Amino acid sequence: MIIVMKNGVTAEQINEVARHIESWGARAHVDRGEIQTVIGVIGDKAEILRKPWGSFAGVEKVLEVSDPFKMASRKFHPTDTVIDVEGVKIGGGHTCVIAGPCSVDTEEYVLAIAKAVKASGAKMLRGGAFKPRTSPYTFQGSGEDGLKILQTVKKETGLPIVTEVMSVDQIDLVYRYADVIQVGARNTQNFNLLKAIGKMNKPVILKNGIATTAKEHLMSAEYIMSEGLKDVILCLRGTRSYETAMRNSLDVALIPYLQELSHLPVIVDSSHSTGARAYVNPVAYAGMAAGADGLILEVHPKPHEALSDGEQALLPRDFEYLMRKLDDLKPFSQKDWVKFDGENGAK
Amino acid sequence: MIIVMKNGVTAEQINEVARHIESWGARAHVDRGEIQTVIGVIGDKAEILRKPWGSFAGVEKVLEVSDPFKMASRKFHPTDTVIDVEGVKIGGGHTCVIAGPCSVDTEEYVLAIAKAVKASGAKMLRGGAFKPRTSPYTFQGSGEDGLKILQTVKKETGLPIVTEVMSVDQIDLVYRYADVIQVGARNTQNFNLLKAIGKMNKPVILKNGIATTAKEHLMSAEYIMSEGLKDVILCLRGTRSYETAMRNSLDVALIPYLQELSHLPVIVDSSHSTGARAYVNPVAYAGMAAGADGLILEVHPKPHEALSDGEQALLPRDFEYLMRKLDDLKPFSQKDWVKFDGENGAK
Amino acid sequence: MIIVMKNGVTAEQINEVARHIESWGARAHVDRGEIQTVIGVIGDKAEILRKPWGSFAGVEKVLEVSDPFKMASRKFHPTDTVIDVEGVKIGGGHTCVIAGPCSVDTEEYVLAIAKAVKASGAKMLRGGAFKPRTSPYTFQGSGEDGLKILQTVKKETGLPIVTEVMSVDQIDLVYRYADVIQVGARNTQNFNLLKAIGKMNKPVILKNGIATTAKEHLMSAEYIMSEGLKDVILCLRGTRSYETAMRNSLDVALIPYLQELSHLPVIVDSSHSTGARAYVNPVAYAGMAAGADGLILEVHPKPHEALSDGEQALLPRDFEYLMRKLDDLKPFSQKDWVKFDGENGAK
Amino acid sequence: MIIVMKNGVTAEQINEVARHIESWGARAHVDRGEIQTVIGVIGDKAEILRKPWGSFAGVEKVLEVSDPFKMASRKFHPTDTVIDVEGVKIGGGHTCVIAGPCSVDTEEYVLAIAKAVKASGAKMLRGGAFKPRTSPYTFQGSGEDGLKILQTVKKETGLPIVTEVMSVDQIDLVYRYADVIQVGARNTQNFNLLKAIGKMNKPVILKNGIATTAKEHLMSAEYIMSEGLKDVILCLRGTRSYETAMRNSLDVALIPYLQELSHLPVIVDSSHSTGARAYVNPVAYAGMAAGADGLILEVHPKPHEALSDGEQALLPRDFEYLMRKLDDLKPFSQKDWVKFDGENGAK
Repeated sequence: MIIVMKNGVTAEQINEVARHIESWGARAHVDRGEIQTVIGVIGDKAEILRKPWGSFAGVEKVLEVSDPFKMASRKFHPTDTVIDVEGVKIGGGHTCVIAGPCSVDTEEYVLAIAKAVKASGAKMLRGGAFKPRTSPYTFQGSGEDGLKILQTVKKETGLPIVTEVMSVDQIDLVYRYADVIQVGARNTQNFNLLKAIGKMNKPVILKNGIATTAKEHLMSAEYIMSEGLKDVILCLRGTRSYETAMRNSLDVALIPYLQELSHLPVIVDSSHSTGARAYVNPVAYAGMAAGADGLILEVHPKPHEALSDGEQALLPRDFEYLMRKLDDLKPFSQKDWVKFDGENGAK
Repeated sequence: MIIVMKNGVTAEQINEVARHIESWGARAHVDRGEIQTVIGVIGDKAEILRKPWGSFAGVEKVLEVSDPFKMASRKFHPTDTVIDVEGVKIGGGHTCVIAGPCSVDTEEYVLAIAKAVKASGAKMLRGGAFKPRTSPYTFQGSGEDGLKILQTVKKETGLPIVTEVMSVDQIDLVYRYADVIQVGARNTQNFNLLKAIGKMNKPVILKNGIATTAKEHLMSAEYIMSEGLKDVILCLRGTRSYETAMRNSLDVALIPYLQELSHLPVIVDSSHSTGARAYVNPVAYAGMAAGADGLILEVHPKPHEALSDGEQALLPRDFEYLMRKLDDLKPFSQKDWVKFDGENGAK
Repeated sequence: MIIVMKNGVTAEQINEVARHIESWGARAHVDRGEIQTVIGVIGDKAEILRKPWGSFAGVEKVLEVSDPFKMASRKFHPTDTVIDVEGVKIGGGHTCVIAGPCSVDTEEYVLAIAKAVKASGAKMLRGGAFKPRTSPYTFQGSGEDGLKILQTVKKETGLPIVTEVMSVDQIDLVYRYADVIQVGARNTQNFNLLKAIGKMNKPVILKNGIATTAKEHLMSAEYIMSEGLKDVILCLRGTRSYETAMRNSLDVALIPYLQELSHLPVIVDSSHSTGARAYVNPVAYAGMAAGADGLILEVHPKPHEALSDGEQALLPRDFEYLMRKLDDLKPFSQKDWVKFDGENGAK
Repeated sequence: MIIVMKNGVTAEQINEVARHIESWGARAHVDRGEIQTVIGVIGDKAEILRKPWGSFAGVEKVLEVSDPFKMASRKFHPTDTVIDVEGVKIGGGHTCVIAGPCSVDTEEYVLAIAKAVKASGAKMLRGGAFKPRTSPYTFQGSGEDGLKILQTVKKETGLPIVTEVMSVDQIDLVYRYADVIQVGARNTQNFNLLKAIGKMNKPVILKNGIATTAKEHLMSAEYIMSEGLKDVILCLRGTRSYETAMRNSLDVALIPYLQELSHLPVIVDSSHSTGARAYVNPVAYAGMAAGADGLILEVHPKPHEALSDGEQALLPRDFEYLMRKLDDLKPFSQKDWVKFDGENGAK
């Protein structure tokens, strides 16, 4: 960490800052420059980083040198994390497509969808029994009945179940039925929920928040991992923007960026990023082209009758079309590029 | 609600949409224009608004005519809501300044702050015992010990207590000590928490989310109110922006905007919107000038030692300076303007 | 256009609006609903759309039914525009990769780059002689000397030249050397420049603005086209966001979105969207996967010595690697999907 | 400037960076930390700051210590700039309200507006003769006829004229009529225009861009000032946001922030920030409360008939009401606060 002092800072003000640095267990390296005085802090413990340096007289700004995430960071865990869900692997070169309805409605529909997406190559089934909705007057999810339908469909198809948990008090119930837990965009920074999930032992798909940065997304993964759980899948579902053409704005550059910073798998949810069926497939395809470890997509045979988000549902045949296209796609691999590029290669 | 059909829409596609509208209990009014065909939906029930109209063939887009909030709306409750907390009133012309430390640390400090802000004119005491932090490695709050300190300080000073609840499982504990419950920006769309709070009987300060719009902020109030609770205070703490000068970006235009749309009181948190002591006071003053019903501000005598957010803490004498300035301020009242302006007046 | 009236609107206020609609040459269709009164405006001329409807008493809001762009719209020109630059085609199934240095520096370097990118498959050469820079103290471009270098390199390699024009007074000079004119992000809404370019007869690459929406991007194309020029290439270079990981944020969903709304070719500039060499290639590849009509990329053999934007320059061998990967890529074609999907197919 | 090196950086990579720093005329101070190696650059010349440090192997990121603006900075010019326009002063404690129509239409209207706003206390008249509009099919301004009307009205009322120049080729014409030149939001980063204006000798009102940061706004002022002109007024008109309630989002915290960083006057344009008459007055009042040096507002007696932006026009009596309210307002002065606060005072 580097503390930049204001023009005209006094020796006393510099000493006051340096004194506090040392009293908090680090060392201060004062560099009185011709233009500006800066104080380097040697031995950056997390607590020191969080001290209110801006409240000291004479301080202009604080520049952070290192990132605050550790367990999620590739610096501390250089090899890719591979997550195994009943034999289905994701990460480290294993890709995985997850598909299913937005909300669980009838067993008939969910089973039909599950069979269709499995036939097309999906390896897990998604479906929400608890739904976060912006209006209290709309469908809030089918609850345990929905979870039971998922369980039945799993028995028939063998597909592991991905479903959302919205609050700490739902954990006991949802964990009885789910194979993989999903944390939605409105809960990405629900820190109590993250900590509770981190104490459990099932893999988690952690979506980015409505307006989180990539590094905040990693800090939320860190919350989970700091409690012990290692199996976190980062899911990009786009962030809020002034662009109204799409429901959210998803930058595929964040796929290689997160893979560079972190060893965790990164998947793309183009159903929520676009919010409209016509764009789900090209963005999913582009995400895999950019090197994503997988996809999570919404599929429904009768979108008019879907209990939520029908606009963005793919028809089963749309999904099949995408999967066929993906068979022929050779993703852009940063690792291959680096290998090709040799020592001075791509970062 | 108005459904705009695409160029070249077929009669069959129009009929399909109209048929569904009627089957869902509303009436369809088809207007075949020279340029574009639109279908008006008469009898907009909430459920119909949420149907996936975009998934029908031939539909270009859907235009919503009316807002989805009801209990929070001034249309359904024309007079200002006045909230009474042990005799302290807010709303309907009653203004209220709330102040205190970001986090509860020692009884000595909290008591000193409480006495100081009371002497300057604050009417309630804020202080967090549970803290949402982006890093799991920083101070997470003092918990029940902190709540007990707040209780002791209330006994000494008589100031009602405002404190945050972060999750459903904290409700029992926090409600034993708090007079007013605060919902923070990361929980604005934690719908399970909102519903649980709506079933309780203490006033709530509901902050806007990291990147919510004003109407989404009102929808979150609606979640609480739909469960029965009427006493909701809307708090503006800024939203995320590409501008990095401030921690967040707060548009004071939203004060009269929310007051026009809703009957609920609107207060300003310029500690969190600016994130830096130097700007807290001018923004607080400007917020009151624009007609806010109150303020919630962070004050600490030794910001270097504050357990969180020291950069944005006002010193007690800064707070006193602000309160003296506020004594002389005549806020801009939309109602006075309308009265002055007569019948054709300001909307 | 539909004008939504407020609750409690009077008959007189409705008549006042209707009277103005008719006086401006359109017809008013008043629909007094149970909940809300709306006025449909039949015969939407552009000028009527722009009247200050919000300033009439009783008006709540105005909903636009149709988009304001015409010549850029696929509604008015259903077939893809194909642009031909000395035999190099772009649009309508013809893809084209443009590459070269950010700024023109020495003839030696530009020639070396041109030969390298041509060998790898680039079909046009880009290079800036006039540079928009945020600081007046940095390199502002090599001016006519740079243009002459481009001309010389064109003679040697045969590659058509793409270069930027920053203001109306540069047009005469730049048009003597350029084959394709580039309009940069800071000039996307420089309407005087757009009109002047629209009167000339060379193809234009129009970048989106720092924070324009896709529809505003099309409106800027409309400015050019309304003056007579038909050959406009839309270029996506990302928009500003609170995400700081990348220089800008680029949503590949806008590629099929713009292609659906407009008949103009859409290309991707992942050098400027990412701002960092490591992410240029995967985003370029993903953009082509999503169906882009081409790329425009920065290449430099010695990025340390580049006069601008060295961080985002690809090395010639990076570019070659990308071009080899692109040989094997089968883009996701919306048209093929629709064909596969049949009548009820993807919108 | 500080260059942060990656984990695992080699001695050779460090030397390569250091060698380049020295070759470009600065000194390198290498600090091999326990966690991270950083290289301080002593003697930051602007050109060195702009070198592509990110393109060197082993570099993780670059932290800028000092701001790139000089002439606009208070560091280099500690006292407030006071601008004098025919005896009307702005800055350094002198406030000034500018009002008038958005577009110049008829002499009758402009004269009536000018007389009305002068009677209420406005000190300059604004009015656009050249209009930047997002659609080429809407009114583009009255051109020289409009400028002549402004001249006539100035003769009658004595109010100095503020009007916009949109491009370099309009400068000769507009400078014959204008007393103060306005640069609009779409031209804030039209660097050729800024440089041309900087060579002229009339004061400039420089609006922030659609999505510029406060520091970029200052860099655009620097462009003008680097050519010689000293009289620049910074105007805040809001920036783009995902919030759709207002036309733009204006954070009043930027008023004291800009005044701290720069010696230039800062004024508020709440007509364009809000885009709706009902919010113009409260935001204008709040802006002055936060310490702005002035306002620029749109006034029209018949908003329905205004040629542009009628929704946001104040009626003359709305403007009068605001001016009466401003008479009683005591702005929040950062300087008074610092004086009150003494040595350890507000930054």
